[in-house]
Amino acid sequence: MSTTTHWQELASEKKGRQNASIPKEWLITPPTDDVLDVTDVPAKCGLLSARELGITEVREVTVLLNKIATGEWTSVEVTTAFSKRAIIAHQITNCLTEIFIDRALERAAWLDEQLRSTGKVVGPLHGLPISLKDQICIKGLETTMGYVSWIGKVAERDASLTEILIECGANLYVRTNLPQTIMWPETCNLVFGRTVNPANRTLTCGGSSGGEGALLGLSGSILGVGSDIGGSVRIPAAMNGIYGFRPSYHRIPYEGSVNSLEGQDSLPSVLGPLSTDLGGIKLFMQVVIGQKPWLKDPLSLRKHWDEAEYQLIEHGGGKRLTFGILWNDGVVVPQPPVIRALELTKAALITAGHDVVDWKPHKHAEIYKATMDIWTAAAKEDYTTVTSQTGEPILRSMSTTHTTDTGRYIKDQSISAFELFQVQKRRTALRKEYLDYWNSTKASTTTGRPVDAVISPVAPFPPPPHGKNTNAEYTSVWNALDYPACVFPVTKVDPLLDQPKPAHRFLSEEDQAVYELYDSPETFKNAPVGLQLVGRTQEDEAVIAMTEIVDAALKAKLYDRQRL
Amino acid sequence: MSTTTHWQELASEKKGRQNASIPKEWLITPPTDDVLDVTDVPAKCGLLSARELGITEVREVTVLLNKIATGEWTSVEVTTAFSKRAIIAHQITNCLTEIFIDRALERAAWLDEQLRSTGKVVGPLHGLPISLKDQICIKGLETTMGYVSWIGKVAERDASLTEILIECGANLYVRTNLPQTIMWPETCNLVFGRTVNPANRTLTCGGSSGGEGALLGLSGSILGVGSDIGGSVRIPAAMNGIYGFRPSYHRIPYEGSVNSLEGQDSLPSVLGPLSTDLGGIKLFMQVVIGQKPWLKDPLSLRKHWDEAEYQLIEHGGGKRLTFGILWNDGVVVPQPPVIRALELTKAALITAGHDVVDWKPHKHAEIYKATMDIWTAAAKEDYTTVTSQTGEPILRSMSTTHTTDTGRYIKDQSISAFELFQVQKRRTALRKEYLDYWNSTKASTTTGRPVDAVISPVAPFPPPPHGKNTNAEYTSVWNALDYPACVFPVTKVDPLLDQPKPAHRFLSEEDQAVYELYDSPETFKNAPVGLQLVGRTQEDEAVIAMTEIVDAALKAKLYDRQRL
Repeated sequence: MSTTTHWQELASEKKGRQNASIPKEWLITPPTDDVLDVTDVPAKCGLLSARELGITEVREVTVLLNKIATGEWTSVEVTTAFSKRAIIAHQITNCLTEIFIDRALERAAWLDEQLRSTGKVVGPLHGLPISLKDQICIKGLETTMGYVSWIGKVAERDASLTEILIECGANLYVRTNLPQTIMWPETCNLVFGRTVNPANRTLTCGGSSGGEGALLGLSGSILGVGSDIGGSVRIPAAMNGIYGFRPSYHRIPYEGSVNSLEGQDSLPSVLGPLSTDLGGIKLFMQVVIGQKPWLKDPLSLRKHWDEAEYQLIEHGGGKRLTFGILWNDGVVVPQPPVIRALELTKAALITAGHDVVDWKPHKHAEIYKATMDIWTAAAKEDYTTVTSQTGEPILRSMSTTHTTDTGRYIKDQSISAFELFQVQKRRTALRKEYLDYWNSTKASTTTGRPVDAVISPVAPFPPPPHGKNTNAEYTSVWNALDYPACVFPVTKVDPLLDQPKPAHRFLSEEDQAVYELYDSPETFKNAPVGLQLVGRTQEDEAVIAMTEIVDAALKAKLYDRQRL
Repeated sequence: MSTTTHWQELASEKKGRQNASIPKEWLITPPTDDVLDVTDVPAKCGLLSARELGITEVREVTVLLNKIATGEWTSVEVTTAFSKRAIIAHQITNCLTEIFIDRALERAAWLDEQLRSTGKVVGPLHGLPISLKDQICIKGLETTMGYVSWIGKVAERDASLTEILIECGANLYVRTNLPQTIMWPETCNLVFGRTVNPANRTLTCGGSSGGEGALLGLSGSILGVGSDIGGSVRIPAAMNGIYGFRPSYHRIPYEGSVNSLEGQDSLPSVLGPLSTDLGGIKLFMQVVIGQKPWLKDPLSLRKHWDEAEYQLIEHGGGKRLTFGILWNDGVVVPQPPVIRALELTKAALITAGHDVVDWKPHKHAEIYKATMDIWTAAAKEDYTTVTSQTGEPILRSMSTTHTTDTGRYIKDQSISAFELFQVQKRRTALRKEYLDYWNSTKASTTTGRPVDAVISPVAPFPPPPHGKNTNAEYTSVWNALDYPACVFPVTKVDPLLDQPKPAHRFLSEEDQAVYELYDSPETFKNAPVGLQLVGRTQEDEAVIAMTEIVDAALKAKLYDRQRL
């Protein structure tokens, strides 16, 4: 038996077990592959009752929690509804990895019983179904992280975040798909295959938390947790029309979750929430931080939820904010739908009484270079150490038709610790420059403060066809600077409004490639477009509060109806 | 001209310029080399007036500040007094590097004029002389950091900390000596030579902030700033009978200061205060953090001074604390004076109504190993990159008689980024184990809380003879865990009380060497012995508050008179 056969057999066996974990009675007849937009399938497939549709389409997490706490909906009902909808989502987008609805229903019954017998909720998330990216370990379940080599790797304990969510009364029911190595902004691996975008299945759902993106895009979850080292929460959030938050380093406990490149401590991945409700983002952050994660995770910041920051005390109480708009990063000009989203947001903010100025990018290309040098410093050894256990190949492309791309995240060389230190030193110097630059914007505002927040593209394009999502630079720049950033939905591609523009003088080869990718707007029809609001290091609370302001301004505008 | 000659000439020229920066009228006739204890020289040499003695021997920083603010003492008087005393200290211990009293007196005059004309102090440190380790850059002055190769390297701007201190009204007047590479717990380099312990000049002043230690030990400064990657603030504090604080990573801004191993981000050096007054430690932390260092330094934590932490809200208000005593770390048994200091502290705490339990070390040897692996990952390349500019040799010993030791901080190999990541991963796992262990001590207290703080040796010995300070493990373990730690003075070596003990079964080769080093207590006579109070990550405010409690308990005990 050759090694190749071996890994394929392992993957096939695992996929078989995954299929077996799907309740048979929840199998639907999925639409054929030529049906691209599958967003109406949950409502139309007949599996969900009207009540279940109502539960899964509740607009606010706090409303859902309140209905459970008051007994209007039971935890069993809510868990059943979201589980069914998740299974529907999985059948049309392939978004799940571990499926453990039996455990979830058992716990739901226990939660209901607790509420009944004590009259009290177990915690602030009592009964809330939460989906988790396939990195966040749950005792007794496998965490393959999309590696064939990790099939059968059963977690002996819960990750710190899992512990906290359970202590708070949440109910975990599914884990979600991600790309092999995690270091791709799309979602495909050799165990579970590819996850697609529910708005248009020829397009990527983004990555690396793409399973979360597709699942939440279909309301198969109301709150999920992904990870973000270069945009992996934000890209799928934007590409599926939902909210997603990249907290500052070490605000949410990573301890006990698995990851690629473990031990790479200078530009760390962070866990962050994705939700159909911006209120869910806030609730997640407030509740998790309220549990003092530093008592479980040695790297977690000992920093309480700061209500003064949330009240925007250092931003004039949020009354008249100055937003800087990043129209382009000096490397790649965004495609027309993204520019329109920026324009819509600008107009909404001005109408709401805020100031808007242009945000000049400061050395973004140099920041990307340092970021890439850190990401690839030991990438090959790291990935090979895992994949060599079974001989599964390391993916070199996310395309459906060809197998090698530039392989930009997997260099064939590694660097010394000394060379790494030089890159890290350069990167810290760039952070200092950016900090000084941000301070200097005080001169361009009318408030006496520097710009309060930056509104930035999440990617230079709407979700592109599979294999074409080659740019994570609009997100990774903020990871390198450790600026918290929150994604909000703005609009969808409208081929009539979003016509290609005449070619400009290209800023780079990549700019030209991104321009040429948008040759036919029809390709992207209905694809969601989100933006991100970016604040300063560890100003997580203020970033959430300011995103609420921007979101409200957008909702207040007439063109709201064009939005997802 | 050979390269060797070249670097010696450079060093000699620099030393000449240093000598020229000493006001001629402040030269004293220093005691001959056979006078070991020089602590009485400032009072007896005749250079300081009674008033100047009074100023430099003021017990509390806040009293000093108050006297300046009310006009009882002028800033010029205070600056003159401390400058004179610093110059005396330098002549008997060789503790200074850059001497810029002319600048300081000019600024003092300006500060006085500001106070006179506005009736207000410039800031909360108005007129306070502060000494700085030779890493913290001051615009227009050289920062050699003890490297011949960096002679002539003039800072183009102030470090972030320098900026903050100046904004707060402090007055900088001298910088202080450190070892070449900074990675030694003693103080000697090829530019400025060796700094010695004022209590006994055959003993080390400790390191790497040893210039600060000797200067403060002679009250040539009331507040200084050192750096600490493995004990470099705490060792000289303990060895000179003063207070010293290692804050958590990134609490005090390092930006703009120079360092060894720049870009090594996972086990960073921190800046921290040393003072003859514990109140000075608190004031420094509170004032610097109050200036929002995160607006200057991109790595500084956005974490305000937390008064609730200082009030020990999470430690029962400080009323009945449980202290764990680390009698030994499982690797080296401390010498008799250190054990006596622990016993004195235990007795004082019990008298004051607190609980004391034994603190079992958890895998300290493994933590040291990981620490050393990170420190040495690129050490040779880093040091050689600098020294090769002039050919100055890299020191291999701190001894006065031989030139090579184990060279433990300079390995002749380097490791790859991937290997570094594996070490860093191991170290994070050890931090998690230690966190869980600390939490588990809840079972051994009567308060319902885990142990509130650990009382630990700073070194297993009092200041040893030059070249013999081979153990920084009692301090570096807390750096690796990122536990803040504050040093307080306890006693001095008393050969009658501190007789050698019978040999025990040695825990390690190092243990045997440390045991054998204490063959004659007379060698250490009068040498100061301090201990450190250790708290949990980012609990800086609580550590300072609990050190105040311990310090008060010690002062309240009869044996107070034995103390320094």
